[in-house]
Amino acid sequence: MSLRAFVPGHVTGFFSAHPHEDPTIAGSRGAGLALSDGVRVTVDLADETTILLNDQRGSMAAVKGVLDRLGVTARVEAETPLPVSAGFGVSGASALGTALATNAAMDGGYTENELVTVAHAAEVKAGTGLGDVVGQARGGIPIRLEPGAPPRGQFDGLPARSRVEYVTFGGLDTAAIIGGDTDQLSRAGEKALASLLERPTLDRFMTVSWTFAREAGLVTERVRSTVEDVHQNGGKASMAMLGETVFALDDGLSSAGYDPATCHIANGARIE
Amino acid sequence: MSLRAFVPGHVTGFFSAHPHEDPTIAGSRGAGLALSDGVRVTVDLADETTILLNDQRGSMAAVKGVLDRLGVTARVEAETPLPVSAGFGVSGASALGTALATNAAMDGGYTENELVTVAHAAEVKAGTGLGDVVGQARGGIPIRLEPGAPPRGQFDGLPARSRVEYVTFGGLDTAAIIGGDTDQLSRAGEKALASLLERPTLDRFMTVSWTFAREAGLVTERVRSTVEDVHQNGGKASMAMLGETVFALDDGLSSAGYDPATCHIANGARIE
Repeated sequence: MSLRAFVPGHVTGFFSAHPHEDPTIAGSRGAGLALSDGVRVTVDLADETTILLNDQRGSMAAVKGVLDRLGVTARVEAETPLPVSAGFGVSGASALGTALATNAAMDGGYTENELVTVAHAAEVKAGTGLGDVVGQARGGIPIRLEPGAPPRGQFDGLPARSRVEYVTFGGLDTAAIIGGDTDQLSRAGEKALASLLERPTLDRFMTVSWTFAREAGLVTERVRSTVEDVHQNGGKASMAMLGETVFALDDGLSSAGYDPATCHIANGARIE
Repeated sequence: MSLRAFVPGHVTGFFSAHPHEDPTIAGSRGAGLALSDGVRVTVDLADETTILLNDQRGSMAAVKGVLDRLGVTARVEAETPLPVSAGFGVSGASALGTALATNAAMDGGYTENELVTVAHAAEVKAGTGLGDVVGQARGGIPIRLEPGAPPRGQFDGLPARSRVEYVTFGGLDTAAIIGGDTDQLSRAGEKALASLLERPTLDRFMTVSWTFAREAGLVTERVRSTVEDVHQNGGKASMAMLGETVFALDDGLSSAGYDPATCHIANGARIE
């Protein structure tokens, strides 16, 4: 029987890295936006594992890790309109969608927290993310107060919704960045989180995210000029962590003359 | 400016009561279903407070409590297709929707956890519920592991979705039941929670909920005969806490010859 789950995309605006040898404890603090452009995952239990992303056979280490942790082999098809390796959490969404749909195909037995933990651990082990899975499970505008999988990971959120536009110029190597020296980045991330909690609004989120991107030293020239174009036009934009991607609220990019993809802030992951 | 929020309905299948003099600590453990039939709340800041439920002027103590705690006066309009005082959390949904929409009308300043805490405390003070607000904020099939508002209240969830049908014969006096002797009820509720966590599926949820309703001594004759009709027809049904209401999965009530309202398991509360 073929079971499906939908997991929203997730752009992180700022974060601090909290590595740990136990991948359920490792994670990040920070904040981001869950997006209606996401990943639809279809799982069929099968004698051997096949993993497809937009009809292309691939490795998807986090997805493989989820199947291994659940002790099954399956055909997994992930489909998404999102650019891959560009800061939208496609890897985390595929892992979480695989966990949810596989549980349904196995006729249950796991709670949501357990499945989020399995997907988060597989994602951390794969080196492809630290906070996307838990943010995608929650939805909305997750503020990651404490790192890690539930119940350790703790959340708040911004009570807001918005249209979101984005353009992508290319990928960044997440594993190299979060596996490298993250001290400067994490100091900037902690400062951004404190500032957001002082004034928890969407405007403040965008402002502290852009300050973070510059302080963390991650801004490329194309990202900088695009964000500045949006700002000069009166809009709000920042950079998706970690990709060469600019996201903006409302019509920030289109009214500055860009041709962005459009989506909106979305609810959390769900079985379909 | 007129701001709106949508909050899902919520039927509790089983619970244990955890009173406390601090209404942010008081709450319940248990589990329920967030429903796509919910309450849409519109808030306009105004010189004096007016509260309307489906165009009728009413008191709605929990809504008044939210406005008082936020220090504002406003015109609040709540609209819902759900029966009132029948176990669907209309009061909690109105309180939470008021908190979310009022924050937006005030141009923010509160996080989601803070607004959920305000609404939960107002609901507990009003005596109209112990766990609806936090369940409605989360959405899905919330399992309330620890009572109270965030960050004290802790959740898990069942990774499932379903169509839900319901019929209502009348109300029950929530304040009288949760304000009275809840020892027998709470013992039954703790047993139900332990059994659900042993096998966290929707089928188990329905089974332990019906056992709970009978052990808690809350089942009326009309509820009993309706649930038994659904069971004899091969369906899954139980009683909404606290109302003279039967809810069933899928087409459980309609295929047993009833004429129920129909909705589905829904995501959590959101600003619109």
